[in-house]
Amino acid sequence: MPPVITAFERSPDRGQGLARDMRVRWALEEMGLPYEVRLISFHEMKEPAHRALHPFGQIPTFQDGAVALFESGAIVLHLGQTHPGLLPKEPAARARALAWIFAALTTIEPPIVDLQNARLLERDKPWNEARLPLLEHRIHARLSELADHLGEEDWLDGAFSAGDLLMVHVLLRLGPSGLLKTHLSLLDYTARGQARPAYRRAFAAQRAVWEATAPQDP
Amino acid sequence: MPPVITAFERSPDRGQGLARDMRVRWALEEMGLPYEVRLISFHEMKEPAHRALHPFGQIPTFQDGAVALFESGAIVLHLGQTHPGLLPKEPAARARALAWIFAALTTIEPPIVDLQNARLLERDKPWNEARLPLLEHRIHARLSELADHLGEEDWLDGAFSAGDLLMVHVLLRLGPSGLLKTHLSLLDYTARGQARPAYRRAFAAQRAVWEATAPQDP
Repeated sequence: MPPVITAFERSPDRGQGLARDMRVRWALEEMGLPYEVRLISFHEMKEPAHRALHPFGQIPTFQDGAVALFESGAIVLHLGQTHPGLLPKEPAARARALAWIFAALTTIEPPIVDLQNARLLERDKPWNEARLPLLEHRIHARLSELADHLGEEDWLDGAFSAGDLLMVHVLLRLGPSGLLKTHLSLLDYTARGQARPAYRRAFAAQRAVWEATAPQDP
Repeated sequence: MPPVITAFERSPDRGQGLARDMRVRWALEEMGLPYEVRLISFHEMKEPAHRALHPFGQIPTFQDGAVALFESGAIVLHLGQTHPGLLPKEPAARARALAWIFAALTTIEPPIVDLQNARLLERDKPWNEARLPLLEHRIHARLSELADHLGEEDWLDGAFSAGDLLMVHVLLRLGPSGLLKTHLSLLDYTARGQARPAYRRAFAAQRAVWEATAPQDP
């Protein structure tokens, strides 16, 4: 039995590959592992059956035999630790890959999600317009530090790793905002990620879900 | 040579144990591992010498022989994976501990940091007062889900693990806000964490730093 992941039946990003199931699909594709996807609705996500898998009522989840997981970072890391291809073998480099996984999800992603929240959840608030530059400033500060580290390298620390996979996906979430355009090396970095065959396969798979369920034009 | 971690020379929390070196100290104490602490100033944190260890110019960092790490989550996880005591041995339970580590740092902590940012960085903004209830609502929603999962158990998933260590520390950051007071089971949960001898030793060690460097009363 292949592992089963959950994903949005109707992704709020309209098939742009920004939902967090994309990270798990991409990791599975990098490793050449088959998988199945169970699509769930916003309503189902908050029901007890799904909360038994994911206490916070979100996607993705991951089930593989006795292993049942939630949190995209945990799933990608678990895959990296149980299959070859996404983590270096040398112990010190393997440990550093952990640092980049957490940097992507706990240092770079939170201010990006803040901006998304401001644009979505606080859109109609009287302060929103005045507050956006503050949020953008926080993101730019982090991106500059990240670009300083990356320098002229292709990836964050030697060969492509789970840290790059998560970092690229986190940065892609900036796409709609245009904020990445002033950090050209990071734009190139995300493009390198998107050019990987495994990324393309994962992207096509989530895109197909959107297209299969999209209402037809009249 | 024991591992060396970095911590604030003058912690902005004034020795309350809320800075992120506390997580690493606690993990080291749980495992009974000796360690050394190198204290650094806010100025030094942003200098190239420290950025070579931590690209985002923060604390803590961790050096142990050939292993050099940043990100408190990565350090605690690395310690859990290289020494007994903070991760279950059974593979499925060990994988679930990963999920709780990421849940603490990527699902629970970001809205808590948002509230801290609002209180510190946006304190003087005209919108701050009106915006706080929105942030508190987001935190309460997550805490309710967490409390639902915890139920009457002592820890998140069987025995105390690195997931609990990080979750307790993340929740303690709510202390000054009083938001935890309406989630009694989580208040008890953090108290259980704080009662552990390893927590107490780690707390005392960071407290001693504050007291040693605090200006004397006139």
